[in-house]
Amino acid sequence: MANVPYKIYLSEDEMPKQWHNIQAVMPEVPGFLNPANGEPVPKEGLLGVFCAETIEQELNKTDEFIAIPDEIVSFYSMYRPSPVVRAYCLEKALGTPAKLYYKFEGNNTSGSHKLNSAAAQAYYAKKQGLTGVTTETGAGQWGSALSMACAFFGLDLVVYMVKTSSEQKPYRKVLMETYGAKVIPSPSPTTDVGQKILAENPGTGGSLGCAISEALETAAKSDGYRYVLGSVLNHVVLHQSIIGLEAKLALEKYDITPDIIIGCAGGGSNLGGLISPFMADKLRGKSGTEFIAVEPASCPSLTRGRYAYDHGDTGRMTPLIKMYTLGSGFIPSPNHAGGLRYHGMSPIVSKLFHDGHISAKSYTQTDVFQAAVMFARTEGTLPAPESSHAIKCAIDEALACKATGEEKTILFGLTGTGYFDMTAYQNFNAGEMNDYVPTDADLEKGFATLPQKC
Amino acid sequence: MANVPYKIYLSEDEMPKQWHNIQAVMPEVPGFLNPANGEPVPKEGLLGVFCAETIEQELNKTDEFIAIPDEIVSFYSMYRPSPVVRAYCLEKALGTPAKLYYKFEGNNTSGSHKLNSAAAQAYYAKKQGLTGVTTETGAGQWGSALSMACAFFGLDLVVYMVKTSSEQKPYRKVLMETYGAKVIPSPSPTTDVGQKILAENPGTGGSLGCAISEALETAAKSDGYRYVLGSVLNHVVLHQSIIGLEAKLALEKYDITPDIIIGCAGGGSNLGGLISPFMADKLRGKSGTEFIAVEPASCPSLTRGRYAYDHGDTGRMTPLIKMYTLGSGFIPSPNHAGGLRYHGMSPIVSKLFHDGHISAKSYTQTDVFQAAVMFARTEGTLPAPESSHAIKCAIDEALACKATGEEKTILFGLTGTGYFDMTAYQNFNAGEMNDYVPTDADLEKGFATLPQKC
Repeated sequence: MANVPYKIYLSEDEMPKQWHNIQAVMPEVPGFLNPANGEPVPKEGLLGVFCAETIEQELNKTDEFIAIPDEIVSFYSMYRPSPVVRAYCLEKALGTPAKLYYKFEGNNTSGSHKLNSAAAQAYYAKKQGLTGVTTETGAGQWGSALSMACAFFGLDLVVYMVKTSSEQKPYRKVLMETYGAKVIPSPSPTTDVGQKILAENPGTGGSLGCAISEALETAAKSDGYRYVLGSVLNHVVLHQSIIGLEAKLALEKYDITPDIIIGCAGGGSNLGGLISPFMADKLRGKSGTEFIAVEPASCPSLTRGRYAYDHGDTGRMTPLIKMYTLGSGFIPSPNHAGGLRYHGMSPIVSKLFHDGHISAKSYTQTDVFQAAVMFARTEGTLPAPESSHAIKCAIDEALACKATGEEKTILFGLTGTGYFDMTAYQNFNAGEMNDYVPTDADLEKGFATLPQKC
Repeated sequence: MANVPYKIYLSEDEMPKQWHNIQAVMPEVPGFLNPANGEPVPKEGLLGVFCAETIEQELNKTDEFIAIPDEIVSFYSMYRPSPVVRAYCLEKALGTPAKLYYKFEGNNTSGSHKLNSAAAQAYYAKKQGLTGVTTETGAGQWGSALSMACAFFGLDLVVYMVKTSSEQKPYRKVLMETYGAKVIPSPSPTTDVGQKILAENPGTGGSLGCAISEALETAAKSDGYRYVLGSVLNHVVLHQSIIGLEAKLALEKYDITPDIIIGCAGGGSNLGGLISPFMADKLRGKSGTEFIAVEPASCPSLTRGRYAYDHGDTGRMTPLIKMYTLGSGFIPSPNHAGGLRYHGMSPIVSKLFHDGHISAKSYTQTDVFQAAVMFARTEGTLPAPESSHAIKCAIDEALACKATGEEKTILFGLTGTGYFDMTAYQNFNAGEMNDYVPTDADLEKGFATLPQKC
């Protein structure tokens, strides 16, 4: 076998032309329920909210592969395929016999994997003849990605940005505006739900759940608009499967099968997309790969949440979704990994976790940033705080291999770069990082907001 | 011929293992003179200031190719080869028959090509047994790059950062500190020259020339330290030749010879490195490629400067260098393209320009940022203000082709990304950009500071 280079690149011709739909392989993912009566929501009930094509994808439980339209392939070609990188320098610094690989999704201006679904959703919205879309953004990566995609395909865009993030990351707002988006800190007085949340929680820094409610309301009130979501939903996991498909192809060039695959998990789309084709192999008994979801201890939906039907937003406007959740009323503490600050979790990831196919870990911020700085100094790239959760876990696994002498192959998702997260690094450098972990009583308050009927 | 993909990548095996030394091909580049007597500076006179190996490279006028040490090849492999990108989407938006290519150097955490020389200089300093180095940074890209390289090779680093830049880009400072560097806004009270400049110009925002003086003084006063420079000098152009070598190899895969090559020019290292092997072909009569240097109208060393012996720094501590210069006393206005805010120009680029092998253009900021935003919205990547000077010129050339119907092939250097330049984009979005151009009287003040003897 040839020596593995630092970066395994696919050619543009080798870039997958179909997404992988894990729903076709796994046990059935529970669908949306109507909160009023607990009945399944018919497809027609979703058409006023989401783009038509993404609803088809959301509900598709039969086709394992779904063609990527040429226009999206062209857009992907501007920044994909992305490399699988062998972390030789980190391995050396750790003195581990483990082999560490990361799939790097940060080499585009949005700074993360989010562009993979943004391109698809903007394309479908334009094709449907819409004039614009609304969305929410936490860390700002999704909003940046969607701004880029909307500028490219010619769509208007309104972004509700979690207020805490908009204050921590003022330049994210400028970036989105440079691409032509309108950015509103959330909760805001521009919506009924925003006004209500502000009245009930004066001074709140907001959350993804609040911002989703505002974006939903604005889409519903605006002609020719729909709402698009950057994570959680099945069709977003589908779009993100390009990550896993490319990673699998690249590793197979060198006959590599990962023993462990690690991803950070906020809404779950990056993790779901990364593991998708590998999980298919495992569910079919073709591999024994282990999968680990990593979340912040401050927002532990998998490790301390409940598997229940819940709203996807704080304003309780969405249908109910079966997922691991802390309750839609759980407002996470300001945590620098804004992209992981969400009360729920992808129904696909939740189901796989519930069935025992994925395990989960959580870490506090200081530990995560220590890993981030070690990674930056050895591998060069300054990672996003979200991605650094996966790095921390990969380092722990590599050190476990050092202790046992095992030569495991570990693949993790480096979902993005930290160039717009310098306030967080500044706090870490100054030793002023907040390691908040919710108490059981805090969690009970969130669980009390779970719908009682379903 | 096969269709040209969006991105032409070389494999790591194909990455050049030798730098290209244009000095061996071109008419002799004038050497350093002693300002006290106008005599050439002997090699020994430079050993106390610069690393020994880089002095050898600086003065090497005979070897066209110089081997890249394995350790630097390994470092390069973390982020190189970098792609040549076909700007299909920009071409379409312009409706031009021209074929636009850019060599993209921004896909690393320093955000620019600067890492190519930082890696080399940090490696040679460590190999020589030094404990640390000092440097200056303008836009912050060089300081970031050197921080990364010093963290990797295990060297201490003190960075004097132009005060204007450190105020416009606070997060650049945090980035460098995250990699372990000590960052001091310049002019500062930590050096004699800094104190003198502050006394003579209270409230000054500083310049690269000032920061160089401070870094030189600190290196001279610190045991086991040398000074390293991120541009201008011949050995930096040598290290940056990796850009041109890779670009040439990539284009040759598709039988492409550029009609025009365009680069932004501050100190000149990116331009010099990009054109190096192409210029060798031209000087040997093997091609008719045209070369264009692009600079800001606010700091027009090529387009309005004089070809004269001058100091490289404001404090007049360096030997004299024959170059296009505005005078070491010229303090440029605050301009967002901090990396282009330097009174002088690479002696190599200056000589080639003087001999008529390169032409030069200048643009004001608003025009440059209009081009930058157009590029961002069509090609995805948000460019650095410096790089956007080259984009503006490439767009002008492409529009000229549209007018004449010519199908010219244009290659430009996209030296970096603008992720740490959001204050500049914010000003542009708000219509508050400053289009300062120095008057002839302003320039005369600078010229009055040129040494009289040489």
